[in-house]
Amino acid sequence: MTATAPSFHAPADPVDILRTLIRCPSVTPAEGGALAYLDALLSNAGFATHRVTLTSPDTPDVENLYARFGTRGPNLCFAGHTDVVPPGDPTHWRFPPFEGAIQDGLIYGRGAVDMKGGVAAFIAAGLDFAGAHGHDPDHADLPGSISFLLTGDEEGPAINGTEKLLRWLADRDERIEHCVLGEPTSRAALGDMVKIGRRGSLSGTLFVHGRQGHVGYPHLAENPIPGMVKLLAALKAEPLDGGNAHFQASNLEVISVDVGNPAFNVIPAEARARFNIRFNDLWTPDTLAAEIERRMVAAAGNEVRFTLAFEARSSDSFLTAPGDFVDLVVEAIAEATGRRPELSTTGGTSDARFIKDCCPVVEFGLVGTSMHAVDESTPIDEVAALTRTYAGVIARYFALFGR
Amino acid sequence: MTATAPSFHAPADPVDILRTLIRCPSVTPAEGGALAYLDALLSNAGFATHRVTLTSPDTPDVENLYARFGTRGPNLCFAGHTDVVPPGDPTHWRFPPFEGAIQDGLIYGRGAVDMKGGVAAFIAAGLDFAGAHGHDPDHADLPGSISFLLTGDEEGPAINGTEKLLRWLADRDERIEHCVLGEPTSRAALGDMVKIGRRGSLSGTLFVHGRQGHVGYPHLAENPIPGMVKLLAALKAEPLDGGNAHFQASNLEVISVDVGNPAFNVIPAEARARFNIRFNDLWTPDTLAAEIERRMVAAAGNEVRFTLAFEARSSDSFLTAPGDFVDLVVEAIAEATGRRPELSTTGGTSDARFIKDCCPVVEFGLVGTSMHAVDESTPIDEVAALTRTYAGVIARYFALFGR
Repeated sequence: MTATAPSFHAPADPVDILRTLIRCPSVTPAEGGALAYLDALLSNAGFATHRVTLTSPDTPDVENLYARFGTRGPNLCFAGHTDVVPPGDPTHWRFPPFEGAIQDGLIYGRGAVDMKGGVAAFIAAGLDFAGAHGHDPDHADLPGSISFLLTGDEEGPAINGTEKLLRWLADRDERIEHCVLGEPTSRAALGDMVKIGRRGSLSGTLFVHGRQGHVGYPHLAENPIPGMVKLLAALKAEPLDGGNAHFQASNLEVISVDVGNPAFNVIPAEARARFNIRFNDLWTPDTLAAEIERRMVAAAGNEVRFTLAFEARSSDSFLTAPGDFVDLVVEAIAEATGRRPELSTTGGTSDARFIKDCCPVVEFGLVGTSMHAVDESTPIDEVAALTRTYAGVIARYFALFGR
Repeated sequence: MTATAPSFHAPADPVDILRTLIRCPSVTPAEGGALAYLDALLSNAGFATHRVTLTSPDTPDVENLYARFGTRGPNLCFAGHTDVVPPGDPTHWRFPPFEGAIQDGLIYGRGAVDMKGGVAAFIAAGLDFAGAHGHDPDHADLPGSISFLLTGDEEGPAINGTEKLLRWLADRDERIEHCVLGEPTSRAALGDMVKIGRRGSLSGTLFVHGRQGHVGYPHLAENPIPGMVKLLAALKAEPLDGGNAHFQASNLEVISVDVGNPAFNVIPAEARARFNIRFNDLWTPDTLAAEIERRMVAAAGNEVRFTLAFEARSSDSFLTAPGDFVDLVVEAIAEATGRRPELSTTGGTSDARFIKDCCPVVEFGLVGTSMHAVDESTPIDEVAALTRTYAGVIARYFALFGR
């Protein structure tokens, strides 16, 4: 298979696009040439493209790309990111992490799965759609628009990425009606899982206050650690909830406990525990914070002095309820992969937490097993099947919602 | 009050000696002139003195002093240290910490209480004893010997101090029959407490092992923190013992818990807790370590993977059982201060933990309230009363044990 420039006649080659993207060393916040390449590819195919550099104090500037084919609604958007996590020591890889080597049906490289593979697939599907409809310069024959929302700040602080890019769109009165996010969502085989929502995330820190002193005179001091042990036990004593039809039970993990006292003969003044809660739609960050506070007050009684602080950056849970949009994505997956996906809301957060405030969003992509790992790789036939899935989503979408 | 050189006729002035010692900035490991001053004072009075510099890899060299008046037994030794902890910011002090200012009957300075005050008192008492017996160059009129064991490494690592100095004595067949350690032992008023033993000290670290992972996928990880909370609760669930006639109950303090995980979305691989136990003579370090291990094994069951490591430097408890020696110290205290001291084994460790392997040891000294604090100070009349106490100990000692 040789690389060919996409034309209105030859179908776009997603594996070639993926290999070109892997060769761009776009470790967050570096653009690495990835967005410039996609910009050129999409401009050539008749997309209106916008390179948007977003800035914030104390974080690096980040380049992003928005491209749209068609001017009228409904606008079906494919969202994703071209930035990748660092490869670690390249000598640990079978093939150089920014080469895109293909062997035994697998393409290797940082981002192959997360998520240049997904980007390559929806770009190829979009180019084919544009090729089929590109003869009228006014796009009068289009049933709507398709667009790409591509960020370079998903793996990093995510400050100069999707969230701000959506505000940039809103400021321009640019509307998106529905969105497919191409993150890796499949578990063991392409098509076995689609994400129709995500749990929310709330982080906080629990401080237990004591009074420093000499370990030989504990009655003159107040060790905060037994109080911390008591409060941490209470934090996990009762489940937060039992989950519901679309969500698993909310879960709290204490991720660190820290005192930092090096001296065996000193009772410390304070102990600190940090925790994160992944929660379902039975809670908001506010109701959950109140519940945690209630538990701590009850466990502390008059004996333990504590302070609770929640991180400002929390995210709500969300659900794109099963219905027409979810159904058409499921049907496109079933047709292209032969699998009916589980409708899931499990796992970590994604940029869908920002997109859901703007329009219904569903996430579907490759098998995530090797993401962020050495020898990240994906079968090239799954990249092709994912491209057919996205093409099927476009066709079914406009059949149902198009003008 | 003006400084006068001690003579065989004028009684020694402990406050003058204390002020001179305070003016020596002997922050561990610096000698600061303190031992050189005492060496000269004692040599002039007929003591045989030995300056012993002790060295160890990885710790600073430390100067120490052993001085003896008399050549025959029994040898009553007064032990102490001239090193002090750092003063902190001198501008926080009412008077410069190395000046020895006297105001309203108090003498101020780093070490006034811990324990240049005690050193000045027993040196003064010793000089007076030597002055009364110093006319015979062969010391044939002496009922025994008195000696001073002074270290410059009590507040520091205590590696090049008393422990090694006692070995140096043993290597020279130098015997000590009884010892009084002049650490501050009084609580509210001079004479209210004497220490006739000390609890032992054992330190250890508990590691709970887990498996790192993403907080959104807790079933793929193993958070060590709930296991740590469970084990720490079990560590304190049952008292170690109820104490006995001479000792309070043994006590365990968890002094630090540390994970050091900065990432709210990561479940950590390991949690670490450090603890210290002050234990009475119902335990040895070995039996206590076995009990801790037993509790952890029982609490862990098959669910929590842990490792337990004990620090190599532990100390045994000890008791100088009430009897002739303790009684004569108590009588001397009662006579000089009007108080009958409580016989105590409470508090932290001291160099008595080394001395008790060599001979019976009792600790008595000033009120410790201001030790290690800003504006450390002691009433000058208590320094005088302490000097009378030590003189009374010497008199009663030789009346009872002398030749």
